[in-house]
Amino acid sequence: MSERLDLITLAHVVEPGDARMGALVERLGAGAVVDAIRTGTIDARHADGLRARLAAVDPQTASQQAAAVGARIIERTHADWPVQLDDLGDRRPFALWVRGPVDLATVERSIAVVGARAATTYGEAVCRQWCAEFSDQGFAVISGGAFGIDAAAHRATLGNGGTTVCVLASGVDVPYPQSHVQLIERIAETGVVMSESPVGVGVRRQRFLSRNRLIGALARTTLVVEAALRSGTASTAHAAADLGRPVLAVPGSVGNPMSAGCHRLIADGVATIAMSATDVLAMTGRLGEYLPPVPVDSARDRLSADEKRLLDAIPPTGSIGLDALRRESGLGLAPVAQGVAALTQAGFVVPRGAGWGLAGRG
Amino acid sequence: MSERLDLITLAHVVEPGDARMGALVERLGAGAVVDAIRTGTIDARHADGLRARLAAVDPQTASQQAAAVGARIIERTHADWPVQLDDLGDRRPFALWVRGPVDLATVERSIAVVGARAATTYGEAVCRQWCAEFSDQGFAVISGGAFGIDAAAHRATLGNGGTTVCVLASGVDVPYPQSHVQLIERIAETGVVMSESPVGVGVRRQRFLSRNRLIGALARTTLVVEAALRSGTASTAHAAADLGRPVLAVPGSVGNPMSAGCHRLIADGVATIAMSATDVLAMTGRLGEYLPPVPVDSARDRLSADEKRLLDAIPPTGSIGLDALRRESGLGLAPVAQGVAALTQAGFVVPRGAGWGLAGRG
Repeated sequence: MSERLDLITLAHVVEPGDARMGALVERLGAGAVVDAIRTGTIDARHADGLRARLAAVDPQTASQQAAAVGARIIERTHADWPVQLDDLGDRRPFALWVRGPVDLATVERSIAVVGARAATTYGEAVCRQWCAEFSDQGFAVISGGAFGIDAAAHRATLGNGGTTVCVLASGVDVPYPQSHVQLIERIAETGVVMSESPVGVGVRRQRFLSRNRLIGALARTTLVVEAALRSGTASTAHAAADLGRPVLAVPGSVGNPMSAGCHRLIADGVATIAMSATDVLAMTGRLGEYLPPVPVDSARDRLSADEKRLLDAIPPTGSIGLDALRRESGLGLAPVAQGVAALTQAGFVVPRGAGWGLAGRG
Repeated sequence: MSERLDLITLAHVVEPGDARMGALVERLGAGAVVDAIRTGTIDARHADGLRARLAAVDPQTASQQAAAVGARIIERTHADWPVQLDDLGDRRPFALWVRGPVDLATVERSIAVVGARAATTYGEAVCRQWCAEFSDQGFAVISGGAFGIDAAAHRATLGNGGTTVCVLASGVDVPYPQSHVQLIERIAETGVVMSESPVGVGVRRQRFLSRNRLIGALARTTLVVEAALRSGTASTAHAAADLGRPVLAVPGSVGNPMSAGCHRLIADGVATIAMSATDVLAMTGRLGEYLPPVPVDSARDRLSADEKRLLDAIPPTGSIGLDALRRESGLGLAPVAQGVAALTQAGFVVPRGAGWGLAGRG
């Protein structure tokens, strides 16, 4: 129980994603690090700031504060801990604040869908359609609750009866943006609203970046729907790629600044190009879990080499006689006669004038 | 002179891009291969067809026939031969029929711009804008004279006073499509109209594919603007990529079937994603020939680590006092005071209430 309290304390005191402090905790244990902060013996760059924060924490009451806003605290040694976050190594959270009826440890088949706040109607439409397909296939959709793509992803999944997870940069009781208070409540009713920031903590720029690494680590696959060239969305993509998770990005018009970030991720090899929800599912499913449809060969693919050669010798319009067909194709009389019969039967060729022409042409 | 006639003869008799015949000519010489076709001693699959074609060729009159339609014949040993075609190895043409005032051997700084016949207004608009930039930078634009992207590429380059090269699948006197007769004449007046098919030869499906390999081999770089999933355009891209030439493709909306072929080429690693004409030029220019503009660092990039940390500690709206700023940033009094002064001077931060807030926010 003491370790739980120490981890909750560290979650209040250490800035999310601080790898140096994470490594210290790994080496010395949470209790020793809390003591070292308190006594000022810690070898850390901002020891004064850490001690000032520690003085303000009362971990005994943190669980009650969480319960008061409908949240539970899941520290990294808890049975409900989502083990995929351990891939973050020294940058994994000390604890998570979690709201909602879904057990976070079961949200393993998941896709992160992220993107620009200033999304276009194109991006939001793609987001809605694809998220519906993801939830149809039983995948949870993870996003950050922001305007634009994030909100479209959450709403489309909720509307389709799927599970959606909202990872906030602020405390789970501090809806951000404030106008999404109702959306975030709806997510908490059927899915998960979570944060590594304690109850009551507001947003800061740095917390968005560290929140993004959580999204990239929670999901099996990350899809970037739209992103400006310099954007926080790119940080989610990089975080996921750094963990070896598949990252995909949706292409768009070269004149759309909200597609420029996607194109850059593709050009830099961070993301692969996503042409359809099927592309995303194919990279997300475990072997045999999801099989993309097999493309059907065209009728032309099934022709023999001689038949193709013959078909190529027939002009695009008008018709061609037997002698010219032999000369053009370079084939003997028998293969020409047999081939024309086969092509006619297959519907490629029709008798026309004194010879043959392409079906469907004048 | 005899070798010239033999090569012209072979250009009439052998199907363009026939690697087996090309290898024979490489080994035995053009004259010996012509003789072997005539005497029926050639080891070729369609010897009868070759002999039948040979009987119809009179190479002595071919130059006159060419001159009659304003064309010259450039065989592969000619001084005006574009040497980059030799990269095709056994699949290089025996001869080219060429119209227009430009010396083909000088068209070395060139970009192939190809795409769907059923282009969209999006594709045509991108094509026009980028081709104007290519010709502004002194690059010739090579295409195939077809409807859609090809025509847009030729027209934009002509309209910009640039050099454009039209590679036909039919003879240079057989405009295809016929409704482009005026466009092709305009190209012949200032640029190049060329073909490896002799005068009078009509189009065949197979000739489009072999023509596409020529386009890919002539240009330093190939740009695919729009393409359907199964398309001839993809064959140009593959031909260029097989020769180690850079291939780029323009992304578009996932709902646009004319962008699907571009996305497939990018997904398959055949093409890299082209976000702008600058991307294409950067991959086309020789070292030092074209330098893309260097991106300017944002003002934020120039802040010190402490200044960034401080900026991140300031809430997105409202203001924050000195004590809270120390606690949030974890910095000492002196760095906070100095940092806030620097951030204020740089315009990131403004005094607000009893503390500081982000500039431009409420």
